[in-house]
Amino acid sequence: MKKIRLFTPGPCMVPEEALLEMARPFEHHRTAWFKDVIKDCTAKLQKVFHTANEVLILTGSGTAAAEGAIVGCCPPGSKMLTVEGGKFGERWGQICEQFGIPVTRHKVDWGTAVDPGVIADHLKKDPAITAVMVVHSETSTATACDLAAIGKITNAAGKLLLADCITSAGALPLKPDEWGVDIVITGSQKALMLPPGLGFVSVSPRAWQTIENNKKQTAFYVNLNKARKSAKDSDTPFTPAHLLVRGLKVTLDMLLAEGMENVWKRVAGLAAATRAAGDAIGMTTYSKRPSDSVTALNVPAGVSEKDFRKQLRDRYGIHLAGGQDQIEGKVVRMSHMGFVDSVDTIGAISAIEQTLHRMGHSFTLGAGVAAATKVFAERA
Amino acid sequence: MKKIRLFTPGPCMVPEEALLEMARPFEHHRTAWFKDVIKDCTAKLQKVFHTANEVLILTGSGTAAAEGAIVGCCPPGSKMLTVEGGKFGERWGQICEQFGIPVTRHKVDWGTAVDPGVIADHLKKDPAITAVMVVHSETSTATACDLAAIGKITNAAGKLLLADCITSAGALPLKPDEWGVDIVITGSQKALMLPPGLGFVSVSPRAWQTIENNKKQTAFYVNLNKARKSAKDSDTPFTPAHLLVRGLKVTLDMLLAEGMENVWKRVAGLAAATRAAGDAIGMTTYSKRPSDSVTALNVPAGVSEKDFRKQLRDRYGIHLAGGQDQIEGKVVRMSHMGFVDSVDTIGAISAIEQTLHRMGHSFTLGAGVAAATKVFAERA
Repeated sequence: MKKIRLFTPGPCMVPEEALLEMARPFEHHRTAWFKDVIKDCTAKLQKVFHTANEVLILTGSGTAAAEGAIVGCCPPGSKMLTVEGGKFGERWGQICEQFGIPVTRHKVDWGTAVDPGVIADHLKKDPAITAVMVVHSETSTATACDLAAIGKITNAAGKLLLADCITSAGALPLKPDEWGVDIVITGSQKALMLPPGLGFVSVSPRAWQTIENNKKQTAFYVNLNKARKSAKDSDTPFTPAHLLVRGLKVTLDMLLAEGMENVWKRVAGLAAATRAAGDAIGMTTYSKRPSDSVTALNVPAGVSEKDFRKQLRDRYGIHLAGGQDQIEGKVVRMSHMGFVDSVDTIGAISAIEQTLHRMGHSFTLGAGVAAATKVFAERA
Repeated sequence: MKKIRLFTPGPCMVPEEALLEMARPFEHHRTAWFKDVIKDCTAKLQKVFHTANEVLILTGSGTAAAEGAIVGCCPPGSKMLTVEGGKFGERWGQICEQFGIPVTRHKVDWGTAVDPGVIADHLKKDPAITAVMVVHSETSTATACDLAAIGKITNAAGKLLLADCITSAGALPLKPDEWGVDIVITGSQKALMLPPGLGFVSVSPRAWQTIENNKKQTAFYVNLNKARKSAKDSDTPFTPAHLLVRGLKVTLDMLLAEGMENVWKRVAGLAAATRAAGDAIGMTTYSKRPSDSVTALNVPAGVSEKDFRKQLRDRYGIHLAGGQDQIEGKVVRMSHMGFVDSVDTIGAISAIEQTLHRMGHSFTLGAGVAAATKVFAERA
């Protein structure tokens, strides 16, 4: 018997209902039917993201959506401040450089979140900075920053705030309008419980002023002005991966039926249980400011991370992600996003315990599932 | 009873086997399993495209793939010649302008193909031109050009040849290596019988020399150097729409089992039958050099194109495309690509006849299906 359980921080588990919806008779995207799907999904994405801002649907990964946002928000004369504490933060700095956008790339230690005061200092020191891009939940280090506090600072300074919410939107509390986040970026294969292939960008009225006047932008396929023009008629400028949008309608309905506050609570509970289990079995949490959407656990000394993950995959169908770059081989990352609940998570923790035990790691067998069970019981 | 029959020139009909394959248990893309899928699909795409050149799989529409190819092939100092006889040709000129690439935009009348000699003249007159981009099958006008003849000219002149093969690859005879086509661009939702969401680019060794040395390119998400680097390990630089690649494996197997020569023959037969039927019922072919992958038929005087297509959709589930821009309201376009055969096509022709009859158009009822049947019988 083989069951696949994706605990990777993207793609995450996808409900069968969404997969089956996408297998239904195949229709055309330039139809009244599909316009209704787009209209419906757009309104529901606003609810999921807690924003009144326009939300655009792009065909591509989260990186495509981020490229569109960065290039659009940085007309000639702009300067970006990126905050980089992991693979994804670094990517946004690279995009700026690739497109010749002046950028200050502020590095923070992996596994730590930026002190919002540091952003304030940068803005004070360098008034040329026009926009700030941060990663709300840095997937590579499983670390979340204080986006609300950062929003206060960028707003007070009159700067645009772009947030990579790829592993936060739909998983962590997110209130862009209240917090002053101008751009929210995410992808389909994380908390939205879909296969990869769609990117999403919400844009504040203030950000639109910059993007609209940015006639020189080197973007065509990911051009947000084009996307906006089409979206006004519930359409897309280029052929969309509309099968995925069809699936999205199903998963958005599921998220909203649960209620976003409840989704956030569920996700936070899974994360708290996982961290407690980790502590109980000698797999401490890597991040100093852990995100609740994904947990990075330190792999105990003497245990090969590669073998550990392979055994989990081969014996239990459980897929965890490893670490990248400077933490390769040192951590495993487990997602709390997607179609996943406490039953799945307890099962994964038990499998982790059994595997560690087989690999000779010394700990109290059963302590992990006991600790997680306690967390779930207390939170229920 | 409602059956949907997509005769639109993209998306085209998708085999149930591909839809069901995509509904199977959902897996991760950074796995040995998916590397095998990519490796297999890449080798099969080379067979479908008749090329030994590397083929890259991008997540996005055909436009995303075209943007990657154009930007990659045009480092500073380049100049592009685009040939524009319809919506898509025009788009490639727009991309050049958006990215600040010097471009000569050669216009030809809609519904006609470029005289290859005109391209030779341009290249002689303006040695600054380094690359030529043509549309093999212009979907908006259902017109095909003589790509082989153009390839001879660009090769003799030592210029790169980029071909939009979005509605030709997998449908019309295409021999890029023999003809000297450096770049073949296509998308998933045409002859490859899949839903939209993937773009494909094949790149000749000569084109790679230009792309590799193009360090200044303003491309990140659609950067072909990045895509190539990952493809060497059967991987992608950014999260791919891997569900669609999974479906692609199924449709490529189907195309290759039929044999590309047979696919080309089938498609050409459907086109010939459709044109013959059109002639017999007073719907002449719009294009002076019709493509075999899609036929544009002139709508008879007195018949509202909009109503005509609506009735076909509502009564028979048959979706045709209308005309765009200067031929809006004047033609309907019918695809011969995708999971479509003579039985489907005869059925559509009959529905077209019944609808025309109901709308008061005067012609010999049954002449269309008779003419088409004759073509099929003669070609079988």
